[in-house]
Amino acid sequence: MASTVGDRLDPWLDSYAAQARSMTASQIRALFAVASRPEVVSLAGGMPAISALDLDDVAGLVAQVVAAQGGAALQYGSGQGDVALRELIASAVLPPVGVSAHPDDIVVTVGSQHALELVTAVFCDPGDVVLVESPSYVGALSVFAAAQVRVVHLPMDDDGLVADAIAPAVAALAAQGRRVKMLYTVPSFHNPAGVTQPPQRRAAVLAAAQRAGVLVLEDDPYALLGFDEVVPRALRADDPTGVVYLGSFSKTFAPGLRVGFAVAPHGVREKLVLASEASVLCPSALAQLTIAAYLTHRPWWEQVKAFRELYRERRDALLDAMTALLPAATTWTRPSGGFYSWVTLPGGLDATAMLPRAVTARVAYVPGSAFYAPADADAGRSSLRLSYCHPTPDRIREGVRRLASVVGDELALADTFGTAAAGLRPAGPGPDVA
Amino acid sequence: MASTVGDRLDPWLDSYAAQARSMTASQIRALFAVASRPEVVSLAGGMPAISALDLDDVAGLVAQVVAAQGGAALQYGSGQGDVALRELIASAVLPPVGVSAHPDDIVVTVGSQHALELVTAVFCDPGDVVLVESPSYVGALSVFAAAQVRVVHLPMDDDGLVADAIAPAVAALAAQGRRVKMLYTVPSFHNPAGVTQPPQRRAAVLAAAQRAGVLVLEDDPYALLGFDEVVPRALRADDPTGVVYLGSFSKTFAPGLRVGFAVAPHGVREKLVLASEASVLCPSALAQLTIAAYLTHRPWWEQVKAFRELYRERRDALLDAMTALLPAATTWTRPSGGFYSWVTLPGGLDATAMLPRAVTARVAYVPGSAFYAPADADAGRSSLRLSYCHPTPDRIREGVRRLASVVGDELALADTFGTAAAGLRPAGPGPDVA
Repeated sequence: MASTVGDRLDPWLDSYAAQARSMTASQIRALFAVASRPEVVSLAGGMPAISALDLDDVAGLVAQVVAAQGGAALQYGSGQGDVALRELIASAVLPPVGVSAHPDDIVVTVGSQHALELVTAVFCDPGDVVLVESPSYVGALSVFAAAQVRVVHLPMDDDGLVADAIAPAVAALAAQGRRVKMLYTVPSFHNPAGVTQPPQRRAAVLAAAQRAGVLVLEDDPYALLGFDEVVPRALRADDPTGVVYLGSFSKTFAPGLRVGFAVAPHGVREKLVLASEASVLCPSALAQLTIAAYLTHRPWWEQVKAFRELYRERRDALLDAMTALLPAATTWTRPSGGFYSWVTLPGGLDATAMLPRAVTARVAYVPGSAFYAPADADAGRSSLRLSYCHPTPDRIREGVRRLASVVGDELALADTFGTAAAGLRPAGPGPDVA
Repeated sequence: MASTVGDRLDPWLDSYAAQARSMTASQIRALFAVASRPEVVSLAGGMPAISALDLDDVAGLVAQVVAAQGGAALQYGSGQGDVALRELIASAVLPPVGVSAHPDDIVVTVGSQHALELVTAVFCDPGDVVLVESPSYVGALSVFAAAQVRVVHLPMDDDGLVADAIAPAVAALAAQGRRVKMLYTVPSFHNPAGVTQPPQRRAAVLAAAQRAGVLVLEDDPYALLGFDEVVPRALRADDPTGVVYLGSFSKTFAPGLRVGFAVAPHGVREKLVLASEASVLCPSALAQLTIAAYLTHRPWWEQVKAFRELYRERRDALLDAMTALLPAATTWTRPSGGFYSWVTLPGGLDATAMLPRAVTARVAYVPGSAFYAPADADAGRSSLRLSYCHPTPDRIREGVRRLASVVGDELALADTFGTAAAGLRPAGPGPDVA
């Protein structure tokens, strides 16, 4: 091998693991490099509006943590996570979603993305099946792809995951000799679909998963960011044994700290800790103690309410602009919380093919195909995800104006020449965060 | 399944992945819970002496980062890591070890433990072989076990890994139809062996790996912490294509930030970024910008020299105390840098069996068997690792005094009744960090 090193583009090409062979940067990724320019209105990323935080106040808080607890904050810590933070999660963060948990049931992770990876590592062998929604969170799909897990998409309606689809899917897969290990769901303010499961739907989802003996992996980063004052009750609240619950501080405080958590049944929790220690030894003590101090010494619930107001205003700006500007027959979901609306284009337009033209017109979105496993990407082709979390209302309106113009041009083109079909096909999910 | 939930200790027992079935907490772990009590002198953990840092100064630095760059520090960032930090790693951190790298070659990770996990994910399928030293870093062994990789231990001598052992091992494994994917080595101030490869040994290791077509995974967290002013030249310095180099800020600054990095050939680096995004989206921006500010605005090299002096003093305290107090025929390595000495007990004593009695005598260490794959654990049975990084010289002397007394008692017992053989056998590596 060494002798041929100079002759080959990648001398290690024959050495990669099976899972790594499919790891190639997507064309979408290259487009997003362009889309991050300031002149582009990005309705693509899921970056929280941390401009709403008082930076000087956070600076003072972090300084206090280092000065007063630096011996712990700068040192290695427990693989399971800081006990004071776990106590605060149990006493303050989980009760609003109806979850009653002991601090021992909680594992702190490097953002909830890491919890997704750890739960998947604990449960899934290559070839195992995970049921997900149509569409599903792109970061979860990346985790499942890396674990060589087969993803099966179940339908959604305006009330989220269609519970009646669970039993037939599990039965059909069992008939093929395939084992369903988990049902992955985002029940509240779905990313990317923008819908929320009402209580009766949640009960039906839980009942179907229990009957099928399938673990529910409940991803709930947006729960506290609803616009109607009512915090949706977590699935985990009604089934502590059958659900692993994932939470995050990325949306209610700041993603730059990378702190999330899993609430898991005892045996699962023990394995998650061992998997986390093998992965990163422990999460950052500085980040954890900062969040513990924030929850203890700052009016964090008031900040959550401020975030809600800010996102509600932006959601309204998006919906109003879409109503006023997008061509007739375009449809979209009306989120009651969270960051996203799912838009479906009229006339068979292909949102993936349209993206380069949208970026040229200085507006960016994530095409719907990114939220499907590669084999099912066509299911998302006429849809796209718009995020209203980061741009100001004025920028959102300007972005929708530009998008409407691009869609109008595409429709005119399709009328003249038949359905637009530029060749751009993404190799995989883009670099979307959150 | 749901109907039997109440009847079983762990209702998900049949659902775990193959790799998770071997994840069980070890007996050593339970012992270390006792060993963390203040009355116990712990020569076990690898916790850096962050008491040497000026906490008020670090507090001011972090506050400045949040106040001035909070919009970036608290937000999601690049999966590859902050470009300013990668530039500083290339321009300031790598030149002392002789490594010349472009910032594009560097991937920032959640401590170098995470880099270990990512490199393993990119290269190793279950059943692949990784060559490691005898003994090897327990955290790396955890990563390889989680990836269901087969670990083959190669011999070490006072100059570290025996280079001549590489070719025969690769050939013997090939004859069994097994593919060796990587050679994992800690060439400088080895954890746990406390030895360092001299230049001619490094050249021989590189040449053997190149001939065998095996990637070298060079783990180098202690490189700057030598006691002789000379920083060992990294293997990566002489083979940019054949070596993935891992570095860390945990030992030269603070582990609580969880920031390490990998320097990798182009094709490998690209896959590491994709694997890292699937795992954690991105490393903490706050932690990265804090380290970038530390490298830019603080005399970090003076702090490294201060750490060296502090660890040299503690190394001397350990070696002097062992010479004065440990029974004759006990042997140990004399580290010229880093955190550890590897001690071998006389008279066939079993360091694992002795550990509960040592903890009762209020001194803790890590038994040698923890640094071997479970199948080879017997190879480490008469040895143990002593860390001098965290306790003060007085505590180190007191710890060795207690240890010497325990070893003396064991020897007397063995003289009377034959080799001591209490039944304690660990189920796996302990919760040792670094």
